Amino acid sequence: MSICPFDHPYLSGLIGDEEATRWFSVENDIAAMLAFESALAQAEAAEKVIDYAAAETITNACKTFVPDIAALKSAVAKDGVVVPELIRQLRGTVPAEYRTSLHLGATSQDVIDTSLMIRLKPVLVCLNEGLSDILSELDRLERAFGNNGLMGRTRMQAAVPITVRDRIEAWRGPLSRHRQRLDGLRQNFPVIQFGGPAGTLDKLGDKGSAVRERVAAILGLKGLPQWHNQRDMIVDFADLLSQVSGSLGKIGQDTSLLAQEGDEIALEGGGKSSAMPHKQNPVLAELLVSLARYNATQISGMHQALIHEQERSGAAWTLEWMILPSMVTTTVTALRSATALLGSIMSLGEGTNASGV
Amino acid sequence: MSICPFDHPYLSGLIGDEEATRWFSVENDIAAMLAFESALAQAEAAEKVIDYAAAETITNACKTFVPDIAALKSAVAKDGVVVPELIRQLRGTVPAEYRTSLHLGATSQDVIDTSLMIRLKPVLVCLNEGLSDILSELDRLERAFGNNGLMGRTRMQAAVPITVRDRIEAWRGPLSRHRQRLDGLRQNFPVIQFGGPAGTLDKLGDKGSAVRERVAAILGLKGLPQWHNQRDMIVDFADLLSQVSGSLGKIGQDTSLLAQEGDEIALEGGGKSSAMPHKQNPVLAELLVSLARYNATQISGMHQALIHEQERSGAAWTLEWMILPSMVTTTVTALRSATALLGSIMSLGEGTNASGV
Amino acid sequence: MSICPFDHPYLSGLIGDEEATRWFSVENDIAAMLAFESALAQAEAAEKVIDYAAAETITNACKTFVPDIAALKSAVAKDGVVVPELIRQLRGTVPAEYRTSLHLGATSQDVIDTSLMIRLKPVLVCLNEGLSDILSELDRLERAFGNNGLMGRTRMQAAVPITVRDRIEAWRGPLSRHRQRLDGLRQNFPVIQFGGPAGTLDKLGDKGSAVRERVAAILGLKGLPQWHNQRDMIVDFADLLSQVSGSLGKIGQDTSLLAQEGDEIALEGGGKSSAMPHKQNPVLAELLVSLARYNATQISGMHQALIHEQERSGAAWTLEWMILPSMVTTTVTALRSATALLGSIMSLGEGTNASGV
Amino acid sequence: MSICPFDHPYLSGLIGDEEATRWFSVENDIAAMLAFESALAQAEAAEKVIDYAAAETITNACKTFVPDIAALKSAVAKDGVVVPELIRQLRGTVPAEYRTSLHLGATSQDVIDTSLMIRLKPVLVCLNEGLSDILSELDRLERAFGNNGLMGRTRMQAAVPITVRDRIEAWRGPLSRHRQRLDGLRQNFPVIQFGGPAGTLDKLGDKGSAVRERVAAILGLKGLPQWHNQRDMIVDFADLLSQVSGSLGKIGQDTSLLAQEGDEIALEGGGKSSAMPHKQNPVLAELLVSLARYNATQISGMHQALIHEQERSGAAWTLEWMILPSMVTTTVTALRSATALLGSIMSLGEGTNASGV
Repeated sequence: MSICPFDHPYLSGLIGDEEATRWFSVENDIAAMLAFESALAQAEAAEKVIDYAAAETITNACKTFVPDIAALKSAVAKDGVVVPELIRQLRGTVPAEYRTSLHLGATSQDVIDTSLMIRLKPVLVCLNEGLSDILSELDRLERAFGNNGLMGRTRMQAAVPITVRDRIEAWRGPLSRHRQRLDGLRQNFPVIQFGGPAGTLDKLGDKGSAVRERVAAILGLKGLPQWHNQRDMIVDFADLLSQVSGSLGKIGQDTSLLAQEGDEIALEGGGKSSAMPHKQNPVLAELLVSLARYNATQISGMHQALIHEQERSGAAWTLEWMILPSMVTTTVTALRSATALLGSIMSLGEGTNASGV
Repeated sequence: MSICPFDHPYLSGLIGDEEATRWFSVENDIAAMLAFESALAQAEAAEKVIDYAAAETITNACKTFVPDIAALKSAVAKDGVVVPELIRQLRGTVPAEYRTSLHLGATSQDVIDTSLMIRLKPVLVCLNEGLSDILSELDRLERAFGNNGLMGRTRMQAAVPITVRDRIEAWRGPLSRHRQRLDGLRQNFPVIQFGGPAGTLDKLGDKGSAVRERVAAILGLKGLPQWHNQRDMIVDFADLLSQVSGSLGKIGQDTSLLAQEGDEIALEGGGKSSAMPHKQNPVLAELLVSLARYNATQISGMHQALIHEQERSGAAWTLEWMILPSMVTTTVTALRSATALLGSIMSLGEGTNASGV
Repeated sequence: MSICPFDHPYLSGLIGDEEATRWFSVENDIAAMLAFESALAQAEAAEKVIDYAAAETITNACKTFVPDIAALKSAVAKDGVVVPELIRQLRGTVPAEYRTSLHLGATSQDVIDTSLMIRLKPVLVCLNEGLSDILSELDRLERAFGNNGLMGRTRMQAAVPITVRDRIEAWRGPLSRHRQRLDGLRQNFPVIQFGGPAGTLDKLGDKGSAVRERVAAILGLKGLPQWHNQRDMIVDFADLLSQVSGSLGKIGQDTSLLAQEGDEIALEGGGKSSAMPHKQNPVLAELLVSLARYNATQISGMHQALIHEQERSGAAWTLEWMILPSMVTTTVTALRSATALLGSIMSLGEGTNASGV
Repeated sequence: MSICPFDHPYLSGLIGDEEATRWFSVENDIAAMLAFESALAQAEAAEKVIDYAAAETITNACKTFVPDIAALKSAVAKDGVVVPELIRQLRGTVPAEYRTSLHLGATSQDVIDTSLMIRLKPVLVCLNEGLSDILSELDRLERAFGNNGLMGRTRMQAAVPITVRDRIEAWRGPLSRHRQRLDGLRQNFPVIQFGGPAGTLDKLGDKGSAVRERVAAILGLKGLPQWHNQRDMIVDFADLLSQVSGSLGKIGQDTSLLAQEGDEIALEGGGKSSAMPHKQNPVLAELLVSLARYNATQISGMHQALIHEQERSGAAWTLEWMILPSMVTTTVTALRSATALLGSIMSLGEGTNASGV
């Protein structure tokens, strides 16, 4: 389990995040898919599409269901999505009379996209907290060192003197705006996807919208009409992820450059070299640059996937699966790394004393 | 003048836009840079940083100034930016006593970034109009053909019947949201950049903010503190450009696929083949896909440029110059092409009659 | 362990490869790093840089060493590379008198880059076999269906009749050339990296080159001077990976388009829909497109990492770690998927009989 | 004519190249397309597909033909390619009896792809010369300063002392290999494209290959079967372009970092700041980084275009048109800029004297 650094037994210590590992665990994914099926049954019962007894049975089945993962793996190789086999297994645990009530009117994309959205709920909370943590660290640095002098550098060359406060303001501006962008995004995100086989909820007659709104309410998601082949909201989210890691990449690059000479910044800790034990490397500063460039690479694939042809593009959708979880993990890793890096700054700039008085 | 298609004598007929050509003309760029210098002088006079006589002289000089373009070209090769030579030339037209009042407290980045923002004002108007035009075309198509049947297709294979209305709603959703995104963006965009050599307005003492606000008001730009090394707002704009072209790319791909068999769509016009005169090619449909993939490629470079080190990164900034105008032109071309493509649809789907009654 | 599809308990059934999982397993990585240390000791003994007794002791230690993975994970978070802690642990298993002989003259980058190269050896074999398998399948299809008619399509529209042979030749051409490219690449690849702390092998005096050549010979790698901050050979390899997946993406896209109408191609198997049990989806065809677009996205990051500043860029190097193993796995998955897809073609084109007689 | 920097009246002084401007001028493009039509007529006459009189008339017509560019521009907007209108205009200058002999058996893609290949001939020469010039500069620097000391830097921090020679070898290695890659590429490149409407040369019966080889010989191109929907050779070329600019980007980044402190390198010239006349900016060093990151962005689009569906993909092909000429110009600009930057190095490293004795 180590092709990607995020899942790698030791690289994940550097490039990875325990929370992100839980969000994207298969257990969490299956739990979210079952939560969708359960909520769907309840909503359909409330709208008299299925019986209450069916809904109760299905909800209970979802609570105790243990999937056969090996069979899911075989099936996804053939079907391209896990849902048909998951539903087949789940139906097997439900009395025959209620089986058609399970997954009624839904399709694979409803289950998978909504599962993703359920799992993005804690991600948004984590992004907000991560931004806040970093802004707090910047406030601390400004209070402690804001009045210290720093050489302003343009085109990588010494230009005119500035203060530490000036530099911190340049770091803070984008992060403050990212928090506003996140607030804006949350107006309609995370959002339920529910459209049925071709996005028309055709099997639910005139009750489609009502069922959808109930499912959204049960799952704590925003309620919007189906967007299965409209990927702009997913791309908005990905853009924000890369914006955040990009802004942190600037902080990382600036810190690496500050650390070069050793008199403008003092960092606690820092990595060892196998050959030069005396050398202290600002590892997290460089890591922030790697993470920024990684997401800046990935964002291109997410925009390519906007060309989601017809009612469902297997090609474009699968491309998102390959990219988005890595982008989330990269951004969360960048937030944690930046908090740690800024927290390790013991002095910044040059002044008569550390508090700048 | 034909390395890029946008400026190519004949390719620009397909991939180009006359308005975009004017926005990014050198005349328009220089006019915007002079507008900045003129506004700066007026604002500084109002704040008593320079004399009114100096401001009036500078404003008049800006009105009649004719640059030596060949000298600008030589200078930019050496300086990396055009501003030092432009200011040198402009100062030569001003009486000696007023020369230090010109460009006072400003730096190259203020001039170039603000010039870009001035020139983006009509771009935002054009984006809004383009989105509205397409939404109107979609309304027309829905009125005329909305009730017609269409084969819903998932994973590129026939799935279940839908209506033309269903497909149009999938096209309309992202475009409606892009109009909202554009409205959101315009809250703080286009925005003045004014920070001086290292972003600190150090030469204007305590009058920096007041001067900046006056310059913004004169130029019709939003007033925010300097953001010269905070490129998130530029990237927001670029993200929106690629979102728009991406959504239009889906319409193009869908239309190409519809046109394959010839019975689900009828298009007026369409391109000729040099070898097969009988063949009608839905050229604009394919073009929309090319434009979407182009911007999806470019957006990566804009996100890379977020790593804008220290007070000014020549490397990251120049990268933006190489990419952003092409992205604007691509998006505007996509909007015009989509309007034309949708306008050429003579029938869509299958029904008893074209109006779907 | 499921952030990336390659390591995901069920998605890896579709997007993953068991062999690739082994190549990039942590066990395999550590084994390769130990193989380097062991070979280095032997080479240094042969060149009289260290004692034979030291070399024998180190080689034996490498054979029985069991790393403390948790400690490696903690250390990599701090050091940015695993090597210092790995060497510390390994040194702990060696008698004190031989400890300085371990890893003598080497640095982290030597260990990690050479470990990668050792693990790429079976990848190249697998690429070659995969290309051969596909070329064999294409030969089979040509023999069986080559004379059948097919509608030639340009700009996604019917153009002029061609034969199945014509289409197969368009699929075969790039794959044949990729096999030649692979042969060309193997002239100097996979290649040892050995340069010491700053790439100068300064601790080995005039024996640096001789030691390097011996290490390469022991490990079965090509011997070239250090290239630690010269990433062009790695990028060559990545370019080839994306070329291969891109060519297979065309085959996938063509097959999806052929399958649309159902009379030009017949596929055995194909995926189910959760909502439409009657529908057969050419899942592997679409997957090939996703894999091609994924690698086409990633290749950008590998080229960004060419800007590997000074003697070692942590930022650029870490970016490669995040991207390259995924690209390898994507390409190998594409090769296997294409072989399966082509093998599932039961008829192609239209003719009087399947053998085209 | 200034959307892209390459064609911009003053930015092209920095980011542009006069030779590249000529290669991609519309005059040169049309001349190359006419050269193809003329060579085709001659080859078809030699193979007795058309009369010699027709061939002579067509060849003469090509020599004197002056296109109506405005009409080409209108037509390309409708046809998606310029060729149908160009042929229509050209046919108008030929007596009626010979008109069907013009462009016989060819299609738009043959003309456009072959025109590109004709124009890439001097590009390859220029790449080779550019690489040689830089290698010569590196030799000069090594002779002058090779023994001087330099601080070796890993992870952007001072590590161990190296010599200037060590650094130069790291710069030279990839460039030497790029020259070998270029030699390898030239084995089959630039190459004729000739396949007719669907790539089958169906109108030429059994004379297709013979005609193609004659056309290639006349035009000085390699002769390979049609590759119109096999874009791997184009991508090989693009990969090499980005490899070259990437390697030069490392030199640029290293030089910017060397110039920071001012004691490890001395550069002649360097750019001015509008606000800080005392400051010298290593403009070309930063430019090399921008150019490398630009091409690293673009290369993704070229790899996306490998998914060139069916017999001709308008979408993928047009994407190449939007990207490849910019990549060529970027690389040539990088080669010239690197030559100038290296040529401006007046001292490098620290030693008792400049020759290192």
